[in-house]
Amino acid sequence: MSNKVSEHTSYQLRRDEVIDDLQRDGLKIIQNNNFFKFGIDAVLLTFFCNPKKAEHIVDLGTGSGVIALLLSAKYRFAQISGLEIQPAVAEMAQRSVLLNQLQSRVKIFNGDIKNWQQYFTAQSADVVTANPPYFKSGSGLANPNNYKLISRHEVACTLDDLFSAASGILKPNGQFYLIHRPNRLVDIFETARQYRLEPKVIQLVKPRVDEAANLVLIKCVKYGGAELKWLPPIVVYDENQNYTEQIYDIYNQAHLTAFSEGT
Amino acid sequence: MSNKVSEHTSYQLRRDEVIDDLQRDGLKIIQNNNFFKFGIDAVLLTFFCNPKKAEHIVDLGTGSGVIALLLSAKYRFAQISGLEIQPAVAEMAQRSVLLNQLQSRVKIFNGDIKNWQQYFTAQSADVVTANPPYFKSGSGLANPNNYKLISRHEVACTLDDLFSAASGILKPNGQFYLIHRPNRLVDIFETARQYRLEPKVIQLVKPRVDEAANLVLIKCVKYGGAELKWLPPIVVYDENQNYTEQIYDIYNQAHLTAFSEGT
Repeated sequence: MSNKVSEHTSYQLRRDEVIDDLQRDGLKIIQNNNFFKFGIDAVLLTFFCNPKKAEHIVDLGTGSGVIALLLSAKYRFAQISGLEIQPAVAEMAQRSVLLNQLQSRVKIFNGDIKNWQQYFTAQSADVVTANPPYFKSGSGLANPNNYKLISRHEVACTLDDLFSAASGILKPNGQFYLIHRPNRLVDIFETARQYRLEPKVIQLVKPRVDEAANLVLIKCVKYGGAELKWLPPIVVYDENQNYTEQIYDIYNQAHLTAFSEGT
Repeated sequence: MSNKVSEHTSYQLRRDEVIDDLQRDGLKIIQNNNFFKFGIDAVLLTFFCNPKKAEHIVDLGTGSGVIALLLSAKYRFAQISGLEIQPAVAEMAQRSVLLNQLQSRVKIFNGDIKNWQQYFTAQSADVVTANPPYFKSGSGLANPNNYKLISRHEVACTLDDLFSAASGILKPNGQFYLIHRPNRLVDIFETARQYRLEPKVIQLVKPRVDEAANLVLIKCVKYGGAELKWLPPIVVYDENQNYTEQIYDIYNQAHLTAFSEGT
């Protein structure tokens, strides 16, 4: 396929890069201090992503490839593809694949999700995942080429782009797992229905038990019927600012026991 | 206006009726054991309904009139109208208005919200409230004339009917306060946007702290911009199955200290 990042790239570290241990099957990941670093969001999404059938998984906007790598450990027989628009970030993700010798199962593509048909066959995936930019693109952005900006703001990927691609890539009854901000939920639901990806399961994530949620996990099913199931919320911190037992369980279930917080 | 329930109706009790004390300003309400009885939902909605300006309030599907009566105590200078489709229920609500000598401020209309233009001027209300039927109308309903059925199932009032009426009745920037079931949230958001009633504030209500929500309070603003604010959830019961302090506070703030549970 076009634009697939070369498998012969060395996984030698570049300036400002570090290798973090994903603490699962010896999985390691390369991160760059100038890029967006994965956070608890990626771990929560990997935990929440729980399909019965997952032969072919596509992670849209894969960044460092963390979700693709974690899902490769959770679904050992799955073929996993990650699509990332930023060439230097995609190239780094590809080196993490090589570092873990996962090139037979995990493919990284460098491209725009608006052009998903260049990389994926329509209606070919069982599962699509996304930890997309959370913030609407403002008008006064100082530097639209900034790596962290592209990962956090809808400069290169709107909700419409995202759901359009997910719907096109998924088989009928395929599942789209997404993490986003609760204040965008009306936009998310509207766009999901527009592309026939019915929101079926929702789980809120809140910093503390008595606070409002600041993250939301959503499972959509292509051509699913209208009925939204709510799971009990995930609470991240206890009253002493330590992680809750629930979060430790999630890290264990997501096959992780240590991680870096996102920046 | 047509179909307004006569103000000369006696408030004498009928068979199967009881008078409950709303514990606020001496407010009393007539309820009928054969009809749907108001529950915590009505109290939560009255608490959640908190507009700065409320000269004219319309309660759609007012039932026993409980929300209209409670709002008359919360907004002492408001003109409040309640619309109820079931003649016997509307007539009972009107007798509660008389019982409380509120006929100068609270009007009860007997009619279908689909015909709201027969009872209300377009774009005339600051606030619309609704505690509508929660359940989709099934195909195998035994008795579509059953009072409780009409109050709980979308036999006579769909989400589309409700948002269409609320949008028509409200002034620009007017506020629509709604309580409903979380499993209908995708339908609710879609219908709200269809009628330009943007969901702006959401508050979940959950039976216990570690459980998923079973009720949701939503404030929509006519022609409002897209941005959903989440309030911390309301938790109804503590670990001993008693009401939480939060619920007692709400009953106090809603100007109620005792109430009947809905059946």
